[in-house]
Amino acid sequence: MATGPSFTRAVPDGDNRPRRVCDRCGFVDYVNPRIIVGSVAERDGKVLMCRRAIEPRSGFWTLPAGFLEEHEDLAAGARREAREEACAELEMGALLGVYTVPRISQVQLFFRARLVSEIAAGLESQEVGMFAWDDVPWDALAFPSVKWALDDWRATRALDAFAPFVRCAPDTLRPD
Amino acid sequence: MATGPSFTRAVPDGDNRPRRVCDRCGFVDYVNPRIIVGSVAERDGKVLMCRRAIEPRSGFWTLPAGFLEEHEDLAAGARREAREEACAELEMGALLGVYTVPRISQVQLFFRARLVSEIAAGLESQEVGMFAWDDVPWDALAFPSVKWALDDWRATRALDAFAPFVRCAPDTLRPD
Repeated sequence: MATGPSFTRAVPDGDNRPRRVCDRCGFVDYVNPRIIVGSVAERDGKVLMCRRAIEPRSGFWTLPAGFLEEHEDLAAGARREAREEACAELEMGALLGVYTVPRISQVQLFFRARLVSEIAAGLESQEVGMFAWDDVPWDALAFPSVKWALDDWRATRALDAFAPFVRCAPDTLRPD
Repeated sequence: MATGPSFTRAVPDGDNRPRRVCDRCGFVDYVNPRIIVGSVAERDGKVLMCRRAIEPRSGFWTLPAGFLEEHEDLAAGARREAREEACAELEMGALLGVYTVPRISQVQLFFRARLVSEIAAGLESQEVGMFAWDDVPWDALAFPSVKWALDDWRATRALDAFAPFVRCAPDTLRPD
């Protein structure tokens, strides 16, 4: 039976920062920031949202989004997440925002999209729905970036071309 | 002495894709796409470039860029890379382009920047220089994305606000 890794922080040869190194097998666990891809998907002026069935923030509302996989393009990843979470097919549009959350080492890329299918709750969703702006469950959003993406979508909704929003969660920065 | 990890591909519990799992210690090596942050840094109409002193593509010319670290904001990472590779201080500007290279699972984010210091070769550079457009060493560029970033910089140079270029290396996509 494998016993599980046993990590100690140490600076590997040829590196200049401490990394997690396994005492048992010598593996260096280079941790890279993780990429989230997601969409604000519209049809008839309403936006696709999903109520989470998994932690973190189970029961709260989010946009279809998740971890980019290996060897995957950004738009393909965002489409896959919408399929998995809302059984939804999307036509991808412009890059809407790039949101960095240094505390948890995430870079989130959200795109505009058009919903072109029916929707239904996927395995990770309790329910899914299309929301007009005034009906968005503002008091039950899962993450700050959900509000950023919705706000940025609304601010640029009438524009064909625009500079996406580059945001960084301000309370989570380490000194430069 | 640690013997080094021994990985086998298997689908971990609660997952839906094969991942690398160490036979010795049970560690699951979740591989996430990696984020590169870089800059097209200008002063007096010339652009900062670095001739690489390390593999891959040692001896070829690149823009200051490298892996985003844990807990780091995008702009801070791009500034750090310019310091490490060219002893350069930058004032960061707009997001210029987002380039995905699925074959090697990289997402590269390039920013416009202004050089506000002297420059000198850092440890990873053989030499550094400021290049007018016609003097860029086009035949000795290290990576395709260096050309993309330079082209995108030139195309948007006169613009205060613009939609960044979202490119995906077309020959490296896996089926959606």
